[in-house]
Amino acid sequence: MDPVRIIEIKESIFADNDAEADRVRGELKRDKTFLLNLMSSPGSGKTTMLLRTIETLKDRLRMGVMEADIDSAVDAETVAAAGVRSIQLHTGGMCHLDAGMTEQGLREIGTEDLDLVVLENVGNLVCPAEFDTGAVKNAMILSVPEGHDKPLKYPLIFTVCDVLLINKIDVLPYFDFDMEKVAEYAHMRNPKLQIFPICAKTGEGMDAWCDWLEQQVKDWNR
Amino acid sequence: MDPVRIIEIKESIFADNDAEADRVRGELKRDKTFLLNLMSSPGSGKTTMLLRTIETLKDRLRMGVMEADIDSAVDAETVAAAGVRSIQLHTGGMCHLDAGMTEQGLREIGTEDLDLVVLENVGNLVCPAEFDTGAVKNAMILSVPEGHDKPLKYPLIFTVCDVLLINKIDVLPYFDFDMEKVAEYAHMRNPKLQIFPICAKTGEGMDAWCDWLEQQVKDWNR
Repeated sequence: MDPVRIIEIKESIFADNDAEADRVRGELKRDKTFLLNLMSSPGSGKTTMLLRTIETLKDRLRMGVMEADIDSAVDAETVAAAGVRSIQLHTGGMCHLDAGMTEQGLREIGTEDLDLVVLENVGNLVCPAEFDTGAVKNAMILSVPEGHDKPLKYPLIFTVCDVLLINKIDVLPYFDFDMEKVAEYAHMRNPKLQIFPICAKTGEGMDAWCDWLEQQVKDWNR
Repeated sequence: MDPVRIIEIKESIFADNDAEADRVRGELKRDKTFLLNLMSSPGSGKTTMLLRTIETLKDRLRMGVMEADIDSAVDAETVAAAGVRSIQLHTGGMCHLDAGMTEQGLREIGTEDLDLVVLENVGNLVCPAEFDTGAVKNAMILSVPEGHDKPLKYPLIFTVCDVLLINKIDVLPYFDFDMEKVAEYAHMRNPKLQIFPICAKTGEGMDAWCDWLEQQVKDWNR
């Protein structure tokens, strides 16, 4: 296998990020490519979840993955080994991606022949939520060990996301995590938020999530 | 109980954060007050760990706690109920605290009659690590469910911390977490990093940590 391509992305030159994000979405629409922005805390299981999603969807959709990380190319190598096009974006210490930075990645991965690109954002519940990347939909993962109070403490990310994956439900018996409360708190922030309880490790709940994602991609790309 | 005081801290006016941080440390030295900056991902157990630390140390040291949060005052109320002086710092969306912001909090809590102030920083492994708050020591918590690869992905925070608490060791049997590997990776970043495995929920390992912290406070304040 060829080594994974590492792109050092530069700080964005655009003053108006929202306008730039809309422009990125316009180009994605033209190319019939769906961009999913995936956010979470460090260690909530983004990469494991992505690997399962690739396994399920790679024969149904032409997929690509952009791994954003401050350092290392561990995740991009793992994803490339799963058989989809993958690049690593190095943010040079930046804690988030904005639309201009995302566009640099999209240009490198090439969107013309892809139906779905997933951007794995930097692990952080705060800063990534503040910047529209140009994605068609925003998804976040909250894992059971992080606690059900997170929508109270990190309100913005729950507000800007379209879908919330609650991961590591296999360890529910060992944590004080209230599934009803997390849904209640999250819906206070965003009544339209879709919630899928999953276990990326065992695959539980992944079919419902993959079906939802495939439908979103089809609706956008038709 | 009186309601917890909430301070809306403003963006810092100081261009040179390092110089400002040194100035804050100078004032702490003069007041014989030790400031600990506590960082971690959301949900790694900062507040639970703090409550245990308060329980152990509150009769040995005069303690205060500054809870930094984007929103809510949940944690400061919990800490105040544990019987130590506590204020809530609202960062207004900011993902970190710098020295000027920390100083605003110190002025409000009042350091003259406190031996130890703990700053519970915003839950984030990226941005808080970039700013010297003026603390005497930096501590971080990594919890078992987050995974042992975090020093590879978030190098800076492991470099700037003096002590690493590995929390939630009670769930080690349910996760693929390698205690030797995490120590190896963390020491690659920072050979002098002290590591304490703990379970804040059950209290396991907390005595060694509290003894270490008490010694640090005594060394600084004498």
